[in-house]
Amino acid sequence: MARRAPTGPVLGRALLILEAFGPRHTSLTLTELARRAGLPLSTVHRLAGELVTWGALERDAGGRYSVGLRLWEVGSLAPRGLGLRERALPYLEDLSRVTHENVQLAVREGAEVVFVERIAGSRAVPVHTRVGGRFALSATGVGLVLLAHAPHDVQEQVIGGPIERFTARTVTDPKALRRMLADVRTNGFSVSDRQVTDDALSVGAPIRDPAGAVVAAVSLVVRYGTVSAHALSPLLLSSARAISRALESR
Amino acid sequence: MARRAPTGPVLGRALLILEAFGPRHTSLTLTELARRAGLPLSTVHRLAGELVTWGALERDAGGRYSVGLRLWEVGSLAPRGLGLRERALPYLEDLSRVTHENVQLAVREGAEVVFVERIAGSRAVPVHTRVGGRFALSATGVGLVLLAHAPHDVQEQVIGGPIERFTARTVTDPKALRRMLADVRTNGFSVSDRQVTDDALSVGAPIRDPAGAVVAAVSLVVRYGTVSAHALSPLLLSSARAISRALESR
Repeated sequence: MARRAPTGPVLGRALLILEAFGPRHTSLTLTELARRAGLPLSTVHRLAGELVTWGALERDAGGRYSVGLRLWEVGSLAPRGLGLRERALPYLEDLSRVTHENVQLAVREGAEVVFVERIAGSRAVPVHTRVGGRFALSATGVGLVLLAHAPHDVQEQVIGGPIERFTARTVTDPKALRRMLADVRTNGFSVSDRQVTDDALSVGAPIRDPAGAVVAAVSLVVRYGTVSAHALSPLLLSSARAISRALESR
Repeated sequence: MARRAPTGPVLGRALLILEAFGPRHTSLTLTELARRAGLPLSTVHRLAGELVTWGALERDAGGRYSVGLRLWEVGSLAPRGLGLRERALPYLEDLSRVTHENVQLAVREGAEVVFVERIAGSRAVPVHTRVGGRFALSATGVGLVLLAHAPHDVQEQVIGGPIERFTARTVTDPKALRRMLADVRTNGFSVSDRQVTDDALSVGAPIRDPAGAVVAAVSLVVRYGTVSAHALSPLLLSSARAISRALESR
């Protein structure tokens, strides 16, 4: 995970310890934890002990640390995480059952997409997203929706680049990306045509809070050539509206 | 959430701030936060500011605090939370599609059940669990499985009571509960017959890690009188075994 500026000394160090964990680092020895946190072994030993006592970390029989269930429980109270996901899930499941394709729900955090839910389609093209995982805003269906409705400074930051290339069709030209974002706002949905992998097309639509602000995006990811984006967009727009309405009853 | 012993002064106070949030308290003013954490306003103001900077908390336009997406992201790395859920989800969805009943996945934390996933059935009896929510070990289908396979001291703590009563059929007699737990171990599945609500029956089965230890439980919750527990148990046992096998490939 990306580092942020540390805060007060003790709390800041504890947060560095939490940051040491990642999708490919879910279980760490004390030494690995100290190295990844950039902190002395003795400090990590003491703070990790406190975090284990509270349940933010767990320690297995072999002495390896992992993120604890209690931190997951507190995290599940995040309105933009599990809160959003709980409201949206019935509609995501409907989309999945109707299309048998990959369904994704995501929010923006800074200049990145964070995936809040994904349902893998039973006859769908493989996708490599992970719940809680991050991705560039500039390439995916959900990312283009979130970027098109992001604050001006976030848009400029991403467009100012460098824009990561995933395939030959990834849009990395600032002018072309600007045009694409304008299209997303005009059409009400995004199309990412083989911009992430050579075999996938995704269509995304915005989810709005009661004040009309875009707070999340939903997408379908299909194998390129099997369905057109325009065939998918009405279904996706109607699901996105249904989820937006479900958020109002909060 | 239940309080634990605070740790070092700064980290302990930061954890008290996180503990102030709960299912019915997802959004708090600074004053509410200070009152629920039992800390001075100035301390909470400073620490909450640090937690907002890191992303563990978020602050909305009206100044209310909630749990931040970044804490949810780190929490999603907990092997017993989202890790388990990701492995189990395809099998839970199969159970849901085959039965159209409520499907639940849970782990034990101390002397309580924590629900890691639930899929509400389209024609199912209403259940009141919440992902990330807690419940007594002694009454539900998943709880009876987890209790039957819990360490001796946890079993004695729960059996030693007091055992909470939810309906006239909740088993609160220590001897009867001991017998019921022995039956769970003998039969390989649990039956909670209207022990939580007057209209629901749930059947639970254990999920084991590669070493054979019970690490989670899966259950179906159906309306009482529509399906017998013995009709559900083979399906549930086979799903629980499939999930156990999926954990091996970790």
